[in-house]
Amino acid sequence: MNDDIRQRIRTIPDFPKPGIMFRDITTLLLDAEGLALTIDRMAAAVEGKIDLVAGIEARGFLFGAALAVKLGAGMLLVRKDGKLPGATIAEDYALEYGTDRIAIHADALAPGARVLLVDDLIATGGTARAAVRLLKKAGAEVVQASFVVDLPELGGADALRSDGIAVHALVAFDGH
Amino acid sequence: MNDDIRQRIRTIPDFPKPGIMFRDITTLLLDAEGLALTIDRMAAAVEGKIDLVAGIEARGFLFGAALAVKLGAGMLLVRKDGKLPGATIAEDYALEYGTDRIAIHADALAPGARVLLVDDLIATGGTARAAVRLLKKAGAEVVQASFVVDLPELGGADALRSDGIAVHALVAFDGH
Repeated sequence: MNDDIRQRIRTIPDFPKPGIMFRDITTLLLDAEGLALTIDRMAAAVEGKIDLVAGIEARGFLFGAALAVKLGAGMLLVRKDGKLPGATIAEDYALEYGTDRIAIHADALAPGARVLLVDDLIATGGTARAAVRLLKKAGAEVVQASFVVDLPELGGADALRSDGIAVHALVAFDGH
Repeated sequence: MNDDIRQRIRTIPDFPKPGIMFRDITTLLLDAEGLALTIDRMAAAVEGKIDLVAGIEARGFLFGAALAVKLGAGMLLVRKDGKLPGATIAEDYALEYGTDRIAIHADALAPGARVLLVDDLIATGGTARAAVRLLKKAGAEVVQASFVVDLPELGGADALRSDGIAVHALVAFDGH
């Protein structure tokens, strides 16, 4: 399924470190038809009305904003802490070594807003799960989490589902 | 002109440092109608066929990718050095103190590709001018540079024009 999208994603071995097979969506983005297909199919997988698309910095901004326009929704930025100019609420998540923190503007969400979370790829799901906690803390209803690529062996999509979130991905790759 | 877009842009004083009036496009993005109008008008200002939209990390990714889909073009990422997984070409530019470096994938552009450069805001133009040099070095024809916000007093738009680039912005704000 979605072989026309899969074949436009390039794999780069040993990035950002040895042993990682990096699934590179920049080749998909460069291809006008591939980009249009990606946004069409992510949009088609959404059920019901979406008020806001929440895109995770930085690659989630690419698919998220295009999808927001397609769906007639607004776009909410989930950024690394310190990047947003207004008052924020933040959420920590664990990295392999240490922790990191993401934030949204505190006034970005109306209570009950129907939000679609978007990123390019789901791996262990640490960032995406923190984004869901953050959006819920701000009063959102997270309707779905949508990704171009899933790496199912890393368990992030299953973890999101166990958090009660519907997960959609266009393609899955084996391995890390 | 474009008062409906201007009024959706919030000004936050003293971000990221004292004395700066930060023009915050996140409130424009949150508004579904504002986002759609922005992309429609940026698209309407483009003359001729565009092969690729080049978006500057990170806020240029938002407007750039949505615009690429609207124009039927591909999307090229202009990223901070070290973020792209493949072989890159890079370009330095001056900051207030020191220099920074942006990069694109070395194989991203076919010679003669017609490219639209996109970012959220043009101030002094350091990053945008470096992006133009980089795109030209890679063989692109830079057709236009398009921004949501221009801060004309800071001279970036004029500098780009003196480099021979057509510049378009939806709104202009006085001051820094």
